[in-house]
Amino acid sequence: MTLMKEAKLGKTTREMLTVAKKEEIEVEVIKRRIASGKIVIVKNVGRECELVGIGKGLTTKVNANIGTSSEHCNLDFELEKARTAVKYGADTLMDLSTAGDLDQIRNIILSEVKIPVGTVPIYQAAVEAVKKHGAIVDMTEDEILGVIEKHAKDGVDFMTIHAGITKEIVERLMKISRVTGIVSRGGAFLASWILKNQKENPLNKNFDYILEIAKKYDFCISLGDALRPGSLADASDWFQFQELLNVQKLVEKCWESNVQVMVEGPGHLPLNHVETNVVLEKALCKEAPFYVLGPVITDIGAGYDHIVGAIGGAIAALAGADFLCYVTPSEHLGIPTVEDVKEGVVAAKIAAHCADIVKLGWKKAKIDFEMAKARAELNWEKQYKLSIDPEKAKEVRERIKPRTEACTMCGKYCVFKILSYLKKEKCL
Amino acid sequence: MTLMKEAKLGKTTREMLTVAKKEEIEVEVIKRRIASGKIVIVKNVGRECELVGIGKGLTTKVNANIGTSSEHCNLDFELEKARTAVKYGADTLMDLSTAGDLDQIRNIILSEVKIPVGTVPIYQAAVEAVKKHGAIVDMTEDEILGVIEKHAKDGVDFMTIHAGITKEIVERLMKISRVTGIVSRGGAFLASWILKNQKENPLNKNFDYILEIAKKYDFCISLGDALRPGSLADASDWFQFQELLNVQKLVEKCWESNVQVMVEGPGHLPLNHVETNVVLEKALCKEAPFYVLGPVITDIGAGYDHIVGAIGGAIAALAGADFLCYVTPSEHLGIPTVEDVKEGVVAAKIAAHCADIVKLGWKKAKIDFEMAKARAELNWEKQYKLSIDPEKAKEVRERIKPRTEACTMCGKYCVFKILSYLKKEKCL
Repeated sequence: MTLMKEAKLGKTTREMLTVAKKEEIEVEVIKRRIASGKIVIVKNVGRECELVGIGKGLTTKVNANIGTSSEHCNLDFELEKARTAVKYGADTLMDLSTAGDLDQIRNIILSEVKIPVGTVPIYQAAVEAVKKHGAIVDMTEDEILGVIEKHAKDGVDFMTIHAGITKEIVERLMKISRVTGIVSRGGAFLASWILKNQKENPLNKNFDYILEIAKKYDFCISLGDALRPGSLADASDWFQFQELLNVQKLVEKCWESNVQVMVEGPGHLPLNHVETNVVLEKALCKEAPFYVLGPVITDIGAGYDHIVGAIGGAIAALAGADFLCYVTPSEHLGIPTVEDVKEGVVAAKIAAHCADIVKLGWKKAKIDFEMAKARAELNWEKQYKLSIDPEKAKEVRERIKPRTEACTMCGKYCVFKILSYLKKEKCL
Repeated sequence: MTLMKEAKLGKTTREMLTVAKKEEIEVEVIKRRIASGKIVIVKNVGRECELVGIGKGLTTKVNANIGTSSEHCNLDFELEKARTAVKYGADTLMDLSTAGDLDQIRNIILSEVKIPVGTVPIYQAAVEAVKKHGAIVDMTEDEILGVIEKHAKDGVDFMTIHAGITKEIVERLMKISRVTGIVSRGGAFLASWILKNQKENPLNKNFDYILEIAKKYDFCISLGDALRPGSLADASDWFQFQELLNVQKLVEKCWESNVQVMVEGPGHLPLNHVETNVVLEKALCKEAPFYVLGPVITDIGAGYDHIVGAIGGAIAALAGADFLCYVTPSEHLGIPTVEDVKEGVVAAKIAAHCADIVKLGWKKAKIDFEMAKARAELNWEKQYKLSIDPEKAKEVRERIKPRTEACTMCGKYCVFKILSYLKKEKCL
């Protein structure tokens, strides 16, 4: 029985209890929201991992992507990135590998990492089709479904399924130009396949079969946004929202089958589209958890796209997005390094946290309050401890060794020293 | 005659023409807005520098702070930071030095740097009072006014004047606790002075005299926010808004004297207070340019406060803030390094740009459109050129040498390569 089914039947499970405790929310609320699809707990029935809830009323979660590419295929490098992502607080990890022994890589990641792991099965289907048939477009429907089943068996906790991109959309895309076309890799693979084979998207056509697999392994479906805008110029266009309308129907199907589902969202958006996109997804998809990539609020931030993504992510999370996919400084430029993963996770965690302060109140604002007190007391050890990255905070303060209890910025004119004088009414 | 007076008389000056051209706005609009105080051009009559307009309808500007401290006093280090700030696009620079030969440091910065330079004269008054009298609280009113006049004579283009903090506010602050009290250094100096001397804030009491100096040298007054919240816990409280109400009256006084004026704003604010603070300042102060520090939307970002400030800055700028003071990774921890200055400027420039795309439309969105096209064409040289930091973009891409025209992230599965196949209807 799937978790959603159990929730609908009013059963309380270990997963619900654990998430309720972690989130400091009554288990009945968690259960009701799992039943109505507003919260998911991303976990394959065949895998033990940390229990992470995503959705309405919960803390905003952060995902980190790792994975090999044809240009850089090194499992140890990817594992170090995975460990780094976990160290800095990623709630989930996606393996987006497209080179090397994909089964082996996935299974090692699944065994090394204790947080939920997601994948995009169409990548493996495409990579194997190139090897087997010479071209992505020659992958068979059975092969695609076979990969999904394999990932499910291996214990993958959530999978991106680009089932919302249809033949109608792809054909229109060939007529109407978009500045950056399709920037979703899965979407581009499927678009090629659809055009070449002149058939409907196999993920859409076989969605009922995919639901059967999902039911069996109880993984969470993450409905991919193949048509997410790849530039501000393409933001919030017909393609994006036609796909979202298709996705809405699939969300309903998931819920009918008691399969947990999330909806993926943009992508590149101007600042003033971010809230609109979140509100729209929430309204259309009846508060199904929303998983956004960034959003990336300018195209020119290459090298600093973690900052760009943090700005978009903070606004999205405040508007109701539940799950932020990190963006690293190497986005648009290359495969991220270990340091990039750290930078990306921390930036996304900042975005999530500053929104959670507002969304969840004292539960999340408490740490900021403690930090403010530690700051006023010039209690540096406590400040480090409360910082998002204690090692970095300590390193920055001690880079230029302070000679006093103040910092090297203000030195003897430290406001907190002046204030303590003031309080004693001694003044300076 | 001051620039504001000339604007009120309908005269068109070189400054107005230059700013109109740079901003691609009709000079009559610039003139009308200078006359009504909605735009300032920060420039001392005695100094030649780049002409920078700040205010309604103009691009969002970025300020970088540098300056020596009692813990780290090295002029060459500060000059390198100044040059770095200019290189990465800071529109103005503030010298906040509190150690060394302050007159010499200021004058060297004024001669080395070609962008507008701002100062906080109360710092020098306080530092000199400690030397001369042994305590900040013993500085005389004449000494304070003397420093302002000296800075004006030296050619300082804008000065922070904390005239909004009054005896009433300081006395109430001694009774009602605030988690982080006063975090403005100038504010803390003045609060001590007010309490010890039991007199009104000398900057408030002598504001008419300060206006006489400002008129003579035509520098722009930046009304400091001594009571800006130093933590989320203190955000948007009585102290902050009582000061803003006082500041409003001073804005009117500046305008009556034909002196250009900006209003400084927070500071630490939760995400959902940022827009409110901007809207309120704009409404109260009749659209006087708003100059915000950050805002810093969480207290726990130490080491990453440039990202924290970029999130707050983007939202503030979108809501109408005109001028963003950068925040560096060493904020709350120590004196910034050269690298910190770069990181801080770039982060603030990203915040300003993503808001300007929305506020100013095509004028600013064009570069993003060009970048999107370059991306789709895999034209890397053009992408570097259009990036906010071309050197960094190139370095990140080439760190792991790509073997193909794609990047190392997607390699042979590059969506733009797939798309070009699609367009030729060949597919993959």
